[in-house]
Amino acid sequence: MTSLEALAGSAHAGTLYGIGVGPGDVRYLTLRAAGLVRSVDVVAFFAKKGHPGNARRIVAPLMEAGRHEVRFEYPLTEEVPADSVEYQQQIGAFYRATAVALAALLKQGKSVGLLAEGDPFFYGSFMHMWRRLAGDFPVEVVPGVTGMSGCWTSAKTPITWGDDTLAVLPGTLGQEKLVERLRLADAAVIMKVGRNLSKVRRAVDMAGLLSRAIYVERGTMQDERIRPLAECSEPCGAYFGMVLIPGRGRQL
Amino acid sequence: MTSLEALAGSAHAGTLYGIGVGPGDVRYLTLRAAGLVRSVDVVAFFAKKGHPGNARRIVAPLMEAGRHEVRFEYPLTEEVPADSVEYQQQIGAFYRATAVALAALLKQGKSVGLLAEGDPFFYGSFMHMWRRLAGDFPVEVVPGVTGMSGCWTSAKTPITWGDDTLAVLPGTLGQEKLVERLRLADAAVIMKVGRNLSKVRRAVDMAGLLSRAIYVERGTMQDERIRPLAECSEPCGAYFGMVLIPGRGRQL
Repeated sequence: MTSLEALAGSAHAGTLYGIGVGPGDVRYLTLRAAGLVRSVDVVAFFAKKGHPGNARRIVAPLMEAGRHEVRFEYPLTEEVPADSVEYQQQIGAFYRATAVALAALLKQGKSVGLLAEGDPFFYGSFMHMWRRLAGDFPVEVVPGVTGMSGCWTSAKTPITWGDDTLAVLPGTLGQEKLVERLRLADAAVIMKVGRNLSKVRRAVDMAGLLSRAIYVERGTMQDERIRPLAECSEPCGAYFGMVLIPGRGRQL
Repeated sequence: MTSLEALAGSAHAGTLYGIGVGPGDVRYLTLRAAGLVRSVDVVAFFAKKGHPGNARRIVAPLMEAGRHEVRFEYPLTEEVPADSVEYQQQIGAFYRATAVALAALLKQGKSVGLLAEGDPFFYGSFMHMWRRLAGDFPVEVVPGVTGMSGCWTSAKTPITWGDDTLAVLPGTLGQEKLVERLRLADAAVIMKVGRNLSKVRRAVDMAGLLSRAIYVERGTMQDERIRPLAECSEPCGAYFGMVLIPGRGRQL
């Protein structure tokens, strides 16, 4: 019988790994992701100012003491709107410097695993490194369970049945657009709810979907919270808060 | 150091597990999924007539000889339209009988793992068992990497950037609706392309997206095929064929 360790495999020198670490529970890392977290020379991750880093926290049970870790701290996250010049300049400079730092490690022949919450190619910061480095270095991307899969699993809610369409919408969309898109979709997930919670709630209500909507914070993590959106009257939620509107398609 | 085996854990008697087995590569099972595949008393799975079963094939490297396996064979899949009376009657009867068979095993105190390709709560046949059995038996659902994550990873294509919206659409939608939804979305995934390939191609073209569209069959599996949709002139594709239209949002 092949051991899980043997199936998971290990890292190669000079290679950048984009490692999807899933929605929060360490058991939801893939075998390949777990094998890489344990075997790369350098474990790199992004973290919000003053926070230990959510991706780093997820993989803690897989990390021995004494590993080479590199923490990249965002200069800002929710302080200014993401479409502002200030945000784009500061985050742009941050990503450029991070890519330079990763390239230096790769040139030394190190294998570098950059942790990505959820799936690296689905709204991941990793993509900003990938587009800068994939032309110059070998890269392997390991897909992960998305945050939204973690949320609907925790909420015990199938999201799409039969031929349901699913709309994934950022909570940053304007209220009118949110309502329009919600009206067209059979099922929906609204991401990045955070400071947009009251607008999102209004839009869901205007689309006639409030009674079906579920609000989930930190799905699959130890401190997860799941409530009907109708009961969320606070103006702001957690940055990783999500609203789920399950589809009602073909149930045979 | 905790071993992957210890993190993965094992199964409890009399419990139904909906095990997401991911997009195709066995290394993309989660630790929890792998632990359950190896420890449940009964490994159950759906399979198309005359086929060994794709989910079963994915977990083959984790299966020792002599395991108790139960294969549930769909009476039909693509032979008749899914919205026809014949499909609904035959598949409905099949799901009812399958739920009865699973309940019998659970009543005997067996732990039963029902394999689900991708994520169990995202278009999964498992959901039809879950809605019949979750009221009567303990159930654990293990989220998985979706087929679409596997496809965009294999295609080396980030799917959503910044505040992109994503539309997940079944290829069974009418051409006009497909065009309308595609025009509104920043990024899109069209699932279940199969016999709808030429219609899907026409719709993508009419929405002005043909030059960005990628067609992926069997993403992450050994026989995966990835081509620009513009080069796919055949009328039908594989049942699990998918079309990806990557977003072009904020790239910092």
